[in-house]
Amino acid sequence: MKPFETAPPLEISEWINTHGPLSLSAMRGRVVMLHAFQMLCPGCVAHGLPQASKVREMFAEDDVAVIGLHTVFEHHDVMGANALKAFIHEYRLRFPVGIDKLVSGHIPLTMQAYALQGTPSLVLIDRLGRVRLNHFGRIEDMALGALIGQLSGESSMGDVATQVVNATGVCVTMNLLPD
Amino acid sequence: MKPFETAPPLEISEWINTHGPLSLSAMRGRVVMLHAFQMLCPGCVAHGLPQASKVREMFAEDDVAVIGLHTVFEHHDVMGANALKAFIHEYRLRFPVGIDKLVSGHIPLTMQAYALQGTPSLVLIDRLGRVRLNHFGRIEDMALGALIGQLSGESSMGDVATQVVNATGVCVTMNLLPD
Amino acid sequence: MKPFETAPPLEISEWINTHGPLSLSAMRGRVVMLHAFQMLCPGCVAHGLPQASKVREMFAEDDVAVIGLHTVFEHHDVMGANALKAFIHEYRLRFPVGIDKLVSGHIPLTMQAYALQGTPSLVLIDRLGRVRLNHFGRIEDMALGALIGQLSGESSMGDVATQVVNATGVCVTMNLLPD
Amino acid sequence: MKPFETAPPLEISEWINTHGPLSLSAMRGRVVMLHAFQMLCPGCVAHGLPQASKVREMFAEDDVAVIGLHTVFEHHDVMGANALKAFIHEYRLRFPVGIDKLVSGHIPLTMQAYALQGTPSLVLIDRLGRVRLNHFGRIEDMALGALIGQLSGESSMGDVATQVVNATGVCVTMNLLPD
Repeated sequence: MKPFETAPPLEISEWINTHGPLSLSAMRGRVVMLHAFQMLCPGCVAHGLPQASKVREMFAEDDVAVIGLHTVFEHHDVMGANALKAFIHEYRLRFPVGIDKLVSGHIPLTMQAYALQGTPSLVLIDRLGRVRLNHFGRIEDMALGALIGQLSGESSMGDVATQVVNATGVCVTMNLLPD
Repeated sequence: MKPFETAPPLEISEWINTHGPLSLSAMRGRVVMLHAFQMLCPGCVAHGLPQASKVREMFAEDDVAVIGLHTVFEHHDVMGANALKAFIHEYRLRFPVGIDKLVSGHIPLTMQAYALQGTPSLVLIDRLGRVRLNHFGRIEDMALGALIGQLSGESSMGDVATQVVNATGVCVTMNLLPD
Repeated sequence: MKPFETAPPLEISEWINTHGPLSLSAMRGRVVMLHAFQMLCPGCVAHGLPQASKVREMFAEDDVAVIGLHTVFEHHDVMGANALKAFIHEYRLRFPVGIDKLVSGHIPLTMQAYALQGTPSLVLIDRLGRVRLNHFGRIEDMALGALIGQLSGESSMGDVATQVVNATGVCVTMNLLPD
Repeated sequence: MKPFETAPPLEISEWINTHGPLSLSAMRGRVVMLHAFQMLCPGCVAHGLPQASKVREMFAEDDVAVIGLHTVFEHHDVMGANALKAFIHEYRLRFPVGIDKLVSGHIPLTMQAYALQGTPSLVLIDRLGRVRLNHFGRIEDMALGALIGQLSGESSMGDVATQVVNATGVCVTMNLLPD
């Protein structure tokens, strides 16, 4: 899919770590980070999921939403909902995770809609609901921080926020506040 | 010093890795990152300087300037200009480094002007020449990326740039371009 | 179990990455390292299994045997043989892995026989078939190397060095003392 | 120099972190690890010196001696005794460090005697005072642990294990073979 296109809706068979289903349209106004992973994908476990947890801790939740997307396209029989729940429990993941809906074949629906190439993949959606990054593979913390920082600096009115506080870690937030 | 104050001029006795003296006023319009370090400071060597090099590689040079500031406030006799040059050579630092000018006492002038508390310290200056971060100690790559990404997203007109490309790593730049 | 006791036989329901069943008695004369893990144990995935792979690469196979032991004591329904095989495939584990036999209750037989406290656990068996280390939790590469180096330096004739304690880290020293 | 040759005496112009001069002959009966470094050598600072400190902490001091050797062969003017003392203070090195004696030319005497190729270099001397490893460059913690563990397992009576090769990584195997 093309950058700046409106992000397709998430097709989820089951949500974990939420009180109910989430929808991108309800998150309009926030920056949204989707982390597509598989529980048996070594790169996701070693890098992608810890990074997603770090984003969740570093940015304010009402400014930047982090959503895990379990896009199973292989070993379907051993990466079902129960296995995923045990995995999420053991790895202490705190952010919402949606199981990408599989109707037929091997590739689940959301993975198809976003044309994800594999796992780990990372999708950034801006405050206006548009896809701004669709990245397959590793991305460095500094680059990801820069991207989220930029999107966070944009307002949901189509221009730029004057507040630069929300997208920063706690340790540096106060230094950015005008006196 | 207070955030959003205009950054004081750099007081430098000697520049390394440049063709001539640098001045903050000549860099107005760019985001500037000052990394204050000492060559015998373990935290600078292990964390601060590699991070500064990473910022230099990740962001476009005409958008984000990186300047090392050798703020010697201890062991003055063994951290002189020749020692620093050997250090810069061995550690292959590529960005400009200015030696903070010492007139009397132990604390050099720029360190005094910015009220730096020690090394490593990190100062971020926005496109309008104002100090936006003055941080002592370590800062995570993701947090630093977010801060630079935000400042880079601001225009030098006092509002926000519509281009979000420059502040991103090469690997993801294209994904951010509108179609 | 006590150090210097003869290692109990492995009770395995299925072997993976071998041409047939392995037995400790057939390995007499070699140093044997057992790495007890669970595929959904974060400490095993992040630290224990990569370390076991490093031991496999660093030491000669006919001198030091490395055996993975899948000691499932929780989430039994999602860590069966098929799930483990997918895991071993994705993580590219090359050494033999035996599935610890579960007869009743939650704790499989080999785990019981060695009185393992959890995962990851590491058992070192000397050339005479005696348990010399039975360690629960992380162990540093340098300490593990020292232990294997010492056991490897002992002959299979029983002329064991009397000083096996000094070269080990504090955390494992007590386990090496004869009862 | 050849493995299994008697280690040449250390030629030291000044000792730091000791109550007096050290000599290898007085350390006969212990395993000795020499870590040759330069304070402005990035590989020494990032890897070699922290590893030497780890060996110091992990093994008993009366069993395994750790000695730093400052073998300056470049930038002599900025790596003198005062600079080294500031460095040792800032990096909190606790083990004895000897400054390799420079008489003429660029290469100091001990470096010449051991035919060291550069820094970092690591020399292991057994309980009988014989060089068993002379390694230039990085060595993994696990491999170093295995080597020290083996040497530590040997008695000072000369009953050396004949199999010192198998437990070592490929990179150091050849250095361990008797000539």
